[in-house]
Amino acid sequence: MLKHLVFMKFKPETSDAQIAAIEEALGALPDAIPEIKEFVFGRDVVRSERSYDFGLVSSFDDLEAMGRYQVHPDHQAALVLIKAAVSGVVAVDFEY
Amino acid sequence: MLKHLVFMKFKPETSDAQIAAIEEALGALPDAIPEIKEFVFGRDVVRSERSYDFGLVSSFDDLEAMGRYQVHPDHQAALVLIKAAVSGVVAVDFEY
Repeated sequence: MLKHLVFMKFKPETSDAQIAAIEEALGALPDAIPEIKEFVFGRDVVRSERSYDFGLVSSFDDLEAMGRYQVHPDHQAALVLIKAAVSGVVAVDFEY
Repeated sequence: MLKHLVFMKFKPETSDAQIAAIEEALGALPDAIPEIKEFVFGRDVVRSERSYDFGLVSSFDDLEAMGRYQVHPDHQAALVLIKAAVSGVVAVDFEY
């Protein structure tokens, strides 16, 4: 299995409404993309100096399955919302 | 529940042996710290420009439980190894 983790840092001007729209778009993906085996996300609550603003934990059978997820139109649509809202995105993908 | 996610970036000079020692120390924590409800970690395999080197996914009942984990001597011992090996650590903690 592959764990796909993404951290987002939002722009200062990003609104709650934008973040809510991202959450709504992400929330719809598991029903639309069968490759998704796990999909949990949320806003950071600790707010330390090392904290990003938002995190996603997802799992796939393998890198190929994650590749199909990444090019899926619904994921691409979510990315449009995300790109408008973030100042930085980092990721880790590991096999387990 | 609280999802505690950590990304690490290793120093250029950090050795495989150091990373293996970190993995061994982390791997021993779930048996030693009952507050840990989930604990999965690994080395990044995608290696893109947004990739960190190592990721940890863990879960706790709540922030207080995570606090007890963080001060646990075995976790503190693992942190010594981690601090010697990393150039950067970022995190996201979200409720789900």
